[in-house]
Formats: sequence, C-alpha cells, structure tokens
Amino acid sequence: MATRNGAQGDGDGKAVIAACERLLGAGAVLGPERIAERATSYWDPAPMQGAALVRPRSTEELGAVLRLCHDAGQTVVVQGGLTGVVAGATAAADDVIISLERMNAIESVDELDGVAVIQAGAVLQTVQEALEAQGFLFPVDLGARGSCTIGGMVATNAGGINVLRYGMIRNLVLGLEVVLADGTVLSSMNQMLKNNAGYDLKQLFIGSEGTLGIVTRAVIKLAPLPTSRQTVMFAAGSFAAVSAMLKAMRSGLGGTLSAYEVMWHNYYRPVTAPGGHPPPLARDHAFYVLAEAEGVEPDADAARFERVLERGVADGHVADAVLPKSEAEREALWRVREVFEPVLPAYLYDVSLPIKSMAKYVERVEAALAEWRPDAEALVFGHIADGNLHIFTRPHDDGRHQAASDRIVYGALEGLGGSVSAEHGIGIEKKAWLDRTRSAEEIALMRRLKALLDPAGILNPGKVID
Amino acid sequence: MATRNGAQGDGDGKAVIAACERLLGAGAVLGPERIAERATSYWDPAPMQGAALVRPRSTEELGAVLRLCHDAGQTVVVQGGLTGVVAGATAAADDVIISLERMNAIESVDELDGVAVIQAGAVLQTVQEALEAQGFLFPVDLGARGSCTIGGMVATNAGGINVLRYGMIRNLVLGLEVVLADGTVLSSMNQMLKNNAGYDLKQLFIGSEGTLGIVTRAVIKLAPLPTSRQTVMFAAGSFAAVSAMLKAMRSGLGGTLSAYEVMWHNYYRPVTAPGGHPPPLARDHAFYVLAEAEGVEPDADAARFERVLERGVADGHVADAVLPKSEAEREALWRVREVFEPVLPAYLYDVSLPIKSMAKYVERVEAALAEWRPDAEALVFGHIADGNLHIFTRPHDDGRHQAASDRIVYGALEGLGGSVSAEHGIGIEKKAWLDRTRSAEEIALMRRLKALLDPAGILNPGKVID
Repeated sequence: MATRNGAQGDGDGKAVIAACERLLGAGAVLGPERIAERATSYWDPAPMQGAALVRPRSTEELGAVLRLCHDAGQTVVVQGGLTGVVAGATAAADDVIISLERMNAIESVDELDGVAVIQAGAVLQTVQEALEAQGFLFPVDLGARGSCTIGGMVATNAGGINVLRYGMIRNLVLGLEVVLADGTVLSSMNQMLKNNAGYDLKQLFIGSEGTLGIVTRAVIKLAPLPTSRQTVMFAAGSFAAVSAMLKAMRSGLGGTLSAYEVMWHNYYRPVTAPGGHPPPLARDHAFYVLAEAEGVEPDADAARFERVLERGVADGHVADAVLPKSEAEREALWRVREVFEPVLPAYLYDVSLPIKSMAKYVERVEAALAEWRPDAEALVFGHIADGNLHIFTRPHDDGRHQAASDRIVYGALEGLGGSVSAEHGIGIEKKAWLDRTRSAEEIALMRRLKALLDPAGILNPGKVID
Repeated sequence: MATRNGAQGDGDGKAVIAACERLLGAGAVLGPERIAERATSYWDPAPMQGAALVRPRSTEELGAVLRLCHDAGQTVVVQGGLTGVVAGATAAADDVIISLERMNAIESVDELDGVAVIQAGAVLQTVQEALEAQGFLFPVDLGARGSCTIGGMVATNAGGINVLRYGMIRNLVLGLEVVLADGTVLSSMNQMLKNNAGYDLKQLFIGSEGTLGIVTRAVIKLAPLPTSRQTVMFAAGSFAAVSAMLKAMRSGLGGTLSAYEVMWHNYYRPVTAPGGHPPPLARDHAFYVLAEAEGVEPDADAARFERVLERGVADGHVADAVLPKSEAEREALWRVREVFEPVLPAYLYDVSLPIKSMAKYVERVEAALAEWRPDAEALVFGHIADGNLHIFTRPHDDGRHQAASDRIVYGALEGLGGSVSAEHGIGIEKKAWLDRTRSAEEIALMRRLKALLDPAGILNPGKVID
C-alpha cells in the first residue's frame, strides 16, 4: 500500500516507526490497537486510525522524529484536544500521529512583562486556572476549554467568546517555536510586543492547521485579571436595535465589553422549549443578547453598566432584560447560549460577514431553506461584534442533507464579502468551499507556500488545500 | 551600467520608463531632474536619486507598471512619507521609484462594523482627523503623523505611542490589497475580525518593508473615540518603582492606560537644560514617566486616575508628579518626550527587550560607553510597556562614531532576548545586525520567502536581507 504522496510503501512506514521507537523508547510510541482505543474526535466516536502515535517529550525529540518521517516520505498528522469541527486533525490508517500530550508545561510566567511561555500540549482550562492563581487572565476562552490545547489553538488561530475585547489568539502570540517538515527547529520565542527585525515568520504557522509546521511552544501575552463582572441577557425587537446596543455598549463601557452574544428567535425558542433550558426571558421576542463586561471597580462598573442599559430601554432598543443576581444565575444564562445539545442533531456552520449584512444574510438562508423543503430550519446565534455567526440547520437525517445544507448556507454569502470559516478553519470539511472566500490568486499563493515549507507533502496531508 | 541584479542594462531601464509613460500619461512619471527636487528622506536632505518616479492612480495601473518592470528585471522602490530611520525606502540612481501619493483616499468608513478602507498613499494625520470627525479613533499614533502614510505604516508594521493599548498596526489590519512583484493583484480585503479560511496571507506583507509586495489598500479596525483623557508626568527614584507603577496603572485603570513613556535622567536632564524645554519637575530624579489614560467618563476616570497615583505616592513609588490643567500644559509635557531636537546630533537607536532586563541593559550600555571614551553618553527613553527603548548616543562627530556606537548598543543586548529593531524595521542600516536577533534558521527561511515572492529580486533591493 502506497502512502498518499506515493513516496514509499508500507514497509518503509514500519521502518520509520521502529526507528521512532528506538529513538524515544517503546512507551513513547503506540501502535494501531492502542490508537483504536481513542475516539476519532470529540464529534466522531469511531475508533481513531493511524499507523503509530508518537509522543515526544521535547522539541528535540520531535525534530528527530520529523527528520525520520521526512526522509522516508512518511505522512504525519499532529493532534491536540481533537475538538475541532472540520476534521482538520483526522489521521488516515497510514499516517504517523504526533501527540504533544507529554509537552504540556507552563514553562514560565513573567509577572512584570505579563507573558507566559507555554508548551503546545497544555490544555486551555489547566492554563487558565494556573494563570488565574497568579493574577493573570489567559485572554482567549472557548467552549472546548476542557480539552483543547494551546498548540491546537495556535495552529487554528482560535477565537471564541472574548475576541471583541482581546482579539484572536494570533494577537496574543508574541513568540513561537515550530518544527518544520524536515525536522528543522525554528525558534522565534520573542517576548516583546514590538520586534520588527525582518519578516514575522511566526504568522505563517498561526492558523495554518498543522500543514506548514508543528507548533511546540508559544509565548503568550496575558491580561490583568478582571475583578468585576457584569452580565445581562436582554431581548430586542429588531436587528437594528441589537446593532444600536452593540454600538452603545462598545462606546459607553470604556472598552470593558468582553462578550456580546446574539441569539436569533429561531435559536432561542428551540433551546428553551419544554425539556430544554428554562427561558430567562419570554419566548416571543425577535432577538436575545447575552452581554458581559469585565472591569476592576465593582460598584462603579455596575453603575455604568446599568446606566447604558437604562438608556437602551429609554431609546426603545431593549425590550426586556434580566440581570443575574448570583453566579448560578449567570451560569444559567450562559447555558442557554453554550449548551445546545437540545437542538442536536443538526449541521453546524461558522461563517463571518460584516455586521451590516447579517440580517439580510439570515433572511436569505431562511428563504432558501424554505424553498428547499418546508420542514427545514436555521437556528442562528453568534459573536456578532466579530462578524461571526454560527448556524445550525435541520433536519439532519443522519447526514444525508449535508450537501444541500452546505450549498444553502455558503451560497447565501455570495456578494456579501463574508467568509466560509470565521474561526473553525478549513480542515477537510470546508476545503471544497475555500474558493468562495479566497480568490484564485490567494489560493495559488497558499499552494506555493505549502510547497516551499513542506515540499514532500508530509504534514497533515489533504487539509486546507490539496 | 547594469542594475544590481545584472538582468539588464541602462537602455532597457529607459525603455521600461518610456512604456510606463505611455501607459500612465506623461504627468504620472517624473524624471531624475524632478526627482532631485525632493529630499532623500526626512532625515537626509541630499537630493533624491532615481531613474524615474512613477505615480499610478489605481491598483490596476500599478499592476501594469510592475509587470513591465518585472519582465525587464527593472528594480523598484516604493516610497511613502520618507520618515523611516533605517534607509528602508532609499532608492539608487537606477531604481524606478513608486509613489502612491495619488492613491490617498479614505474609500469608506463602516460605522456599524467600525472599519475603514484606506488607500496606501493617505497621510496618517489626514486620516486621523477625518475619522475623528466621524467619531472614530485611528488607533496607531506616532510622531511622524504629519508625513507618514498608511501604506508605509503597514509595510513597516508601525508601532508608536499607543501600542500597549491597541497593538502594532498588524493587529488592526483586517484586510489588505497588495501588488506582487510580477504585477499580480492579491486582494485580501477582509472586513471581519474573524476569517480563518486558509493561510492569512496578508501577514506576509505587513512589516516586510516593501520587499515582498506593494501595499495598495488596507481595511483598518477602528476604535471608538475616547471622550476623556488623563495625563500625568511623575518622577520615580528607581526602575523598580517605574515598573511597580506600570503594573499598578495597568491593572488599576481597567485597560484604559494608553501611554506609559519613560525617560531616564540621562535623557530628561539634557532636554530640560537651559535653552531646551522648561522642566516640569525638578531635574534631580532618576526617572520620569509620562502616562496617559483615555476613557469615556471624564469625572469617574479622573477620580480613578488620581486614586491610582495617590496609592503610588503612599507606596513610595511616585516621588513627585504634575497633572496638566489645560491642553497647553499637556502639550508642554509631551514636548519634553517628543521634541528632542535640543539633544541632536546623536545616533538614534530603537531596541526591544523584556522589561525585567531594561535596567541592567542600560547599565551595560552606559558602562561600555564610559569604557570607550570618557565624554560618551547615552540618552534613554521609550515605550517600556512594549519592551521598547529608544537611545541616543553622543558624541555624534559627523557620523564618524557610528560603528563604535552600534557595537556598544547592539552588543549590550547579548543574552537578554532583545531585538535590534522594535518598531523601526531593518532597511539597509540594521541589516548587518539582523543576526543578533534572528537565528540562522529564521534568516534562511526569510531568504526562501523572498525568493518565492520576488524571484527576480526587483522589489526594494538590498533592504532587510541580501
């Protein structure tokens, strides 16, 4: 059996794996049977496939492993927390899987400079908690926090719920260490906000989904830990009112707005139906917003937050609102937005587009679904301040409607300047749609970069671009 | 006379320029005599050199010009406001200069999304004022605002005085249009905070100083216009006190701290000597800090600002302080930091390093200067929150001490993890020092990227890397 790039046969693959075992010790390499004990991903319970799963303990070990693979033309897939939704880390039976689960330390925290050096295999929530104990906020947060790794987050340019305040993780990565396809260690572990000495090479690897190199360590810019938090869920009668409140909260809260999550009625109603979450607000409004601000002066911040909301009521933008009186009440509000199991199974989408085009876009999707079949529906929510909508479509019907649903959701972006992937990446699942967002010139340059950095095509084959 | 890449002779250069004239019209192309009416740069009054200065009116025109140059092997240097300090835009006599001075429009401002589409030739201050009139802040600000262009700022990844709050311009560029060496137009005019559809190609061109492509348009993320501002200049007895106040203001002002400029006594004393600026504070302190916060609630913000300062006094970090009572008084404080003509001529440096190493670094520089010659001195100031120091060294002696001064200032970075360029770039002047900051592996990859994107070597030849 030849590997996908045709460079070698099965026998060579076995020789490479045996060499890895000699290099790292037997306990560092798992065979296909042990691999099959793991699930393919958080979303796919099928047994994981792979020729071997290699667990280096250091950058040097990983470099040696990649040199072996590169020389033999052996394909390699690096895996993190396996919470991605585009099959961007799925291995085939003849791939060598790299797991950095043994490289999961927070190596250092510099209190004065406000930066941390973190190994790629560290799990987000573990990092968040360790840094919080030292008075720092790790500024990126997302639902998969209990599983996703720092390396995976950098490789996919993770976004999440606080992007409007702190940016994607790209904005927080000051330095990076990467192992290239041929085993070369590229160390760019800068710790400063400013370093304009030549090309900023780390940018190439952030968000390239493991196709150009393997991230081993990152220097992350931290934020001071907020000491006050205000949360509200409010209802609004129109998207114009939702937009007006976003503008009012952005400018009126002095830059402390940290989340602005919008739920269309078509999402809120099903997740608060009997058997789902208790509805915090009446179920007959057009829009629901979950907004949060984080500051440092509890009393003053709360007063300002309430003033902005009262002005929203007076201006007719806020139809009704609920402010949680305890952490338990706050968590109940967030569950409405984050725990969407009541509406599954459904197809999940992640698109971005200018805020001004969002209402029109959702109308287009709804109209196209209705035209397709009378029982079809879209459930829409998202981080609108980031231009990011998530959409569930139903019926799911065991996956048989995927192609029709894709065509409708991505097709409706036409002419609106949107993207087929806001934060989830391309992986395998969105590859066919990349040319809806990127021009022929852009895709041609992506291919040239891939050929430059991975001429043998061994890194995460078949992902992002062919 | 052959051009530097040896691809053609003088006759071909003339043919290319004649073709540009036919394409764009005679008024769009200036010859060597007209070019010589311009100064080489803000810092160098010598007449500008160049075979022709071409002023396209559109991206398409620029694409056509670059195609002609590429096919003929004609070298090209793009120029903006010519305020750079590393000779990164200096043309030789046989180069074709591209100026985008006719492409200087703000094409659109999206009030809801908070983004502006701006042509590369627009001057920063013009852009700042136009956006302010619409209620927006262009978040990057620097001393060269009256001359520098948006294209030049993107090409050099400009920093400046508000980086600790808003980041370098890289963090604000959502979309970019670039013309590649062969005339291909690469349009990545994304307008969203999130767009993870494939490799983020625009990052390649930000900060690459015109060596990989020519920036023609940018989509910039704006900030809401602040409505309150607090400024203080305070004196401190030690770098530890300066660091402690930075930490206190960062965490105590809820993210509104927008500038934290530190002046060593060796800078403050000469600029406030008789004939210089009137000293706002006594001249015998060790350090002086100019700090500013920008918020939205004048009374509450001022009260919080003063509380943080009072705590600084009580903790012994603040030895003395002056709060301006008018805009004129505020401007007088900023002049001490920004108007350094009283201490010229001197060699100007721009390095970055972790804050924790700064005091040690300055001691090293001072010791090495003293060892070199008894009358040598360093004048140090900078954006310490960004890890960025600027250093003047004297005596200047008509440039004869450049090499000795360079060796001392860059040599002292050894082992501290610093960079030879925080925000000024590499250009020609820092090229010999690039390997102090970047590893052999990094420089090798930079060269491969240059060869990939500009195989004929026509773009800004001799800058950044050879």
